[in-house]
Amino acid sequence: MKFAYDCQGGDRAPEAIVEGALEAEKKLGIVAYFYGSEEILKKMPNVARERIVDAIEEITQEESPAMAIRRKSKSAMVLALKDLRDGKVDGMISAGSTGALLAGGMFITGRIEGVERAALPILLNGTMILDVGANMDTTPEMLLSFGKMARAYMIAVQEVSEPRVALLNVGAEEGKGNRQTKEAFSLFQDAMPGFIGNAEARDVFSQAADIIVCDGFSGNILLKGMEGVIGFVQRGFQSVLASGAYAPDVAQTVVAAAKQAMGGLDYRRYGGAPLLGLKKPLIKAHGSSGPEAIFSASVSLQKMIDNNAIAIMEGEYR
Amino acid sequence: MKFAYDCQGGDRAPEAIVEGALEAEKKLGIVAYFYGSEEILKKMPNVARERIVDAIEEITQEESPAMAIRRKSKSAMVLALKDLRDGKVDGMISAGSTGALLAGGMFITGRIEGVERAALPILLNGTMILDVGANMDTTPEMLLSFGKMARAYMIAVQEVSEPRVALLNVGAEEGKGNRQTKEAFSLFQDAMPGFIGNAEARDVFSQAADIIVCDGFSGNILLKGMEGVIGFVQRGFQSVLASGAYAPDVAQTVVAAAKQAMGGLDYRRYGGAPLLGLKKPLIKAHGSSGPEAIFSASVSLQKMIDNNAIAIMEGEYR
Repeated sequence: MKFAYDCQGGDRAPEAIVEGALEAEKKLGIVAYFYGSEEILKKMPNVARERIVDAIEEITQEESPAMAIRRKSKSAMVLALKDLRDGKVDGMISAGSTGALLAGGMFITGRIEGVERAALPILLNGTMILDVGANMDTTPEMLLSFGKMARAYMIAVQEVSEPRVALLNVGAEEGKGNRQTKEAFSLFQDAMPGFIGNAEARDVFSQAADIIVCDGFSGNILLKGMEGVIGFVQRGFQSVLASGAYAPDVAQTVVAAAKQAMGGLDYRRYGGAPLLGLKKPLIKAHGSSGPEAIFSASVSLQKMIDNNAIAIMEGEYR
Repeated sequence: MKFAYDCQGGDRAPEAIVEGALEAEKKLGIVAYFYGSEEILKKMPNVARERIVDAIEEITQEESPAMAIRRKSKSAMVLALKDLRDGKVDGMISAGSTGALLAGGMFITGRIEGVERAALPILLNGTMILDVGANMDTTPEMLLSFGKMARAYMIAVQEVSEPRVALLNVGAEEGKGNRQTKEAFSLFQDAMPGFIGNAEARDVFSQAADIIVCDGFSGNILLKGMEGVIGFVQRGFQSVLASGAYAPDVAQTVVAAAKQAMGGLDYRRYGGAPLLGLKKPLIKAHGSSGPEAIFSASVSLQKMIDNNAIAIMEGEYR
């Protein structure tokens, strides 16, 4: 099985990406292809020189995603996406710009027939939430499509036999919410296997559902709001500790306990998330991924391929 | 100055409400009116019997808000709202059902002329976020109206001289977001004093804006998502401590540090939030308010009246 690694994407590229890829070669038996600056990559130990694909351009977080994909045809991301499309590799992992990856996924590798829009999920404490930012204005039908793609993925890759699907809403009862969620509710009742009704944002961590479907605007607000709280609490701990009210050894204990308590919130542990709706297996790893996150992403990618996740998704649209 | 206290609303009613009201009488020099069961209230020490207004019905969280207001005319909430409308009291505080209070505020006390919808804000770490649940489907014009009401309140009550107003969005740049936020952005540019552009959900705690405007659906998702994280972290701490990995005295220190670190997140400290857009001063206190939260709400209510917040808001619509 051949995996393309975008060695230009992410805050800790190329080192963390390469290290994670090498770990995946060793433990998963996959064959890694390294997309990035040949000059840098060839100096890194254990990187097979014949599997370096030289990229002389680079896509940054700042540029317009669609533009970047169109113009930077010699970037690691575009080169890898083309090899993915052409079957030279079986799957791809990138910690680069989410927008560019989505645009590239849509334009270069293409969508599953019948899928109108690709969606961006996250996996948090065992629950898949989508869309978290790819589609700002959605229809109830798009939400249904997101639910179906997520369901196929959860069955194939996360091995949840009968995923419980919920709609993100402001209250649990039917009839709650805005026009869109009310319309989606009846559509889901008719057409979504495993639909269990509405989920509130505070249920995201309680594993009350395996899949929570929302539009990309709400999903992004939810995700970033949670990040905001986590950051606030972390800063709070830092200032409590910096205040000198606690002896250094006690402070260390507090930090360790806080890390443990907040561990489940760290979505870097979950090995990234697939871009759903594309014809080819493509995992978006978190921008700050370290080697262990890239390795986890590789495990997910292997499962996605082994268990025919894409074929199962295609089946949903036939 | 006469304040109506809904002694039926909230998890800790009537004791916590009465205690907070008595504290306000003592420290703020206001005159409290106690709406609730006369039988219970007259047994409580220091409650002036001549200022008890007997309520023989009660509105619960479970019933339909509009229905409850219409049918339960002898509930504490409805009796107080009517006295507020008729000028028998100058302001009102309730920790009861938000939906019923909104419906009652709209139907009984009435809206400021020109205000299409009342809005429900929260004050979090110094920033007012609104709407957090009163209006599910909004227009850009409604969002502008929310911004204006919040601005008047922040000037009059929070004494922020030039409030910075932002739109809740998925990115800071202009052009981000869904149809609604894009349209609202240009409307705010034209008509909103102090508009500073978009704010991301993760900026909520960073005091980057004094007012963050959103529709009630997104605002509610944001708020409950944050509550979900806080609950998750709290449960995380509990299970870390219950694991026995830490000696009891160390565990106590950890709990104290966590409480300190998360203190700013506790919106009960902020003394509730006004229902904006109504003709009369009405503060919604958190459902789990204790005496100190009711006292804080009384401080806000007094400022709202002293500083003519309603008149300033009315001025925005002339």
